Amino acid sequence: MSLQMDAAELMEFLNEVFPQVQEDFAVEGLSETEISMRLCVQEKHLRPGGTVSGPSMFALADCAAYAMVLARIGRKALAVTTSCSMDFMRKPVAGGDLIATCKLLKLGRSLAVCDILIHSVGQEAAVARASMTYSIPPTR
Amino acid sequence: MSLQMDAAELMEFLNEVFPQVQEDFAVEGLSETEISMRLCVQEKHLRPGGTVSGPSMFALADCAAYAMVLARIGRKALAVTTSCSMDFMRKPVAGGDLIATCKLLKLGRSLAVCDILIHSVGQEAAVARASMTYSIPPTR
Amino acid sequence: MSLQMDAAELMEFLNEVFPQVQEDFAVEGLSETEISMRLCVQEKHLRPGGTVSGPSMFALADCAAYAMVLARIGRKALAVTTSCSMDFMRKPVAGGDLIATCKLLKLGRSLAVCDILIHSVGQEAAVARASMTYSIPPTR
Amino acid sequence: MSLQMDAAELMEFLNEVFPQVQEDFAVEGLSETEISMRLCVQEKHLRPGGTVSGPSMFALADCAAYAMVLARIGRKALAVTTSCSMDFMRKPVAGGDLIATCKLLKLGRSLAVCDILIHSVGQEAAVARASMTYSIPPTR
Repeated sequence: MSLQMDAAELMEFLNEVFPQVQEDFAVEGLSETEISMRLCVQEKHLRPGGTVSGPSMFALADCAAYAMVLARIGRKALAVTTSCSMDFMRKPVAGGDLIATCKLLKLGRSLAVCDILIHSVGQEAAVARASMTYSIPPTR
Repeated sequence: MSLQMDAAELMEFLNEVFPQVQEDFAVEGLSETEISMRLCVQEKHLRPGGTVSGPSMFALADCAAYAMVLARIGRKALAVTTSCSMDFMRKPVAGGDLIATCKLLKLGRSLAVCDILIHSVGQEAAVARASMTYSIPPTR
Repeated sequence: MSLQMDAAELMEFLNEVFPQVQEDFAVEGLSETEISMRLCVQEKHLRPGGTVSGPSMFALADCAAYAMVLARIGRKALAVTTSCSMDFMRKPVAGGDLIATCKLLKLGRSLAVCDILIHSVGQEAAVARASMTYSIPPTR
Repeated sequence: MSLQMDAAELMEFLNEVFPQVQEDFAVEGLSETEISMRLCVQEKHLRPGGTVSGPSMFALADCAAYAMVLARIGRKALAVTTSCSMDFMRKPVAGGDLIATCKLLKLGRSLAVCDILIHSVGQEAAVARASMTYSIPPTR
């Protein structure tokens, strides 16, 4: 029940393994069972009209859940997204950043499950919800 | 943002429309955005070994979300389950009741979305999570 | 890529492990990657108005996917439902049986994934779709 | 039950509304109930190791389902993704294009449901499956 990486180590690790996305995400908070991850919204994330695209929200949920799991199992370990469900409930605020709040519901030997709520910064009603399942391959 | 029925009216309504399930479920708590629903576990809900079956947990999540939506839109209205996702995370405690805690994430004109966590009574770690989407037909 | 049980052995095994449901389900067809499973609709499966309930459709999808996986990994093995998603698309025909057609999309060492379409007997348009994921514990 | 746009009109429309993604996707085939959509895999879609990223596969599934619905309801209409579920089953072939085969399971007045299988070009086993639900706002 303890963290293998703190927020700074986690960001360093994500930047190493996903160099393409390092400008997109920032860890805002981290505990043993919860992480907050920001999507720094840029032109490339938008649909015409200024709304953040579905794939960008998926990427945010996936990145938050992946980081949560990695923070607990450590950087030597692997985790692969195996399934996901998402509900898109409201339009994000045009051009504003999004924050994913991700709770770790289960961390088993071979499966981890996270629940994610996504909000536009400063708004109370959630924009989307997601659940993400990761498979954790056995270490040798 | 107000309730159209209180917990007692809600139970009365559920007993009316689902006479077959009236021994199975009990409203434990109700607010404008959250409901707690108990599955009174009986022989018929169990798999060999004493574990509550998946379909019984689905029925609990569905009933909780349906009741939450009805409490808000009122008994004249209709709501139909359109989609659901569930993750089964741990074995329920053998023979023990289950409690679903259901949050209303969205109540739009035509769609409602609920998030549900299911626990064995007295256990901290959730047994299952679910999200349920309801379609609300237009009134005429 | 071969079956460990034929349809008769599969039904026998299901009747053994799920004695409560043996009147409900019947294997209608089985190949190495597909199974057809009938829900023999009875009073207990119905909602007022004669429609088959959501939990009954969930049970059918779950049973079909479980049987498909078991037919491939054999009766000594275990498989546990870990996640599911369902879309309820149309009302089933009142009082009519339902048929689930289940395709095995993946059978890995630790995870199996199935895709299920449910039809009312004799109707072309599907009543519901589901995907089911099973965890296969390592044998010792 | 007829198409409002053919494949060329559909591509033209997608290029208009999603100018950012016009290099990414190509309609490979279109009928009244099925569409094939190619993801023209580029550097930006890859994870380290050459695997196509989860968000890129989500984008492909979403684009295929959106195009299928638009082909049927026409360009004056609107459709908004409301929910999605995906299972990631195998690693895509490194650097190879992906093809989504999307079936329209339901096209109601207010909801459409699509089922999608994603393959690496030339491979028989599916890389991922998805289901996508769209809300179709009433026309005025």
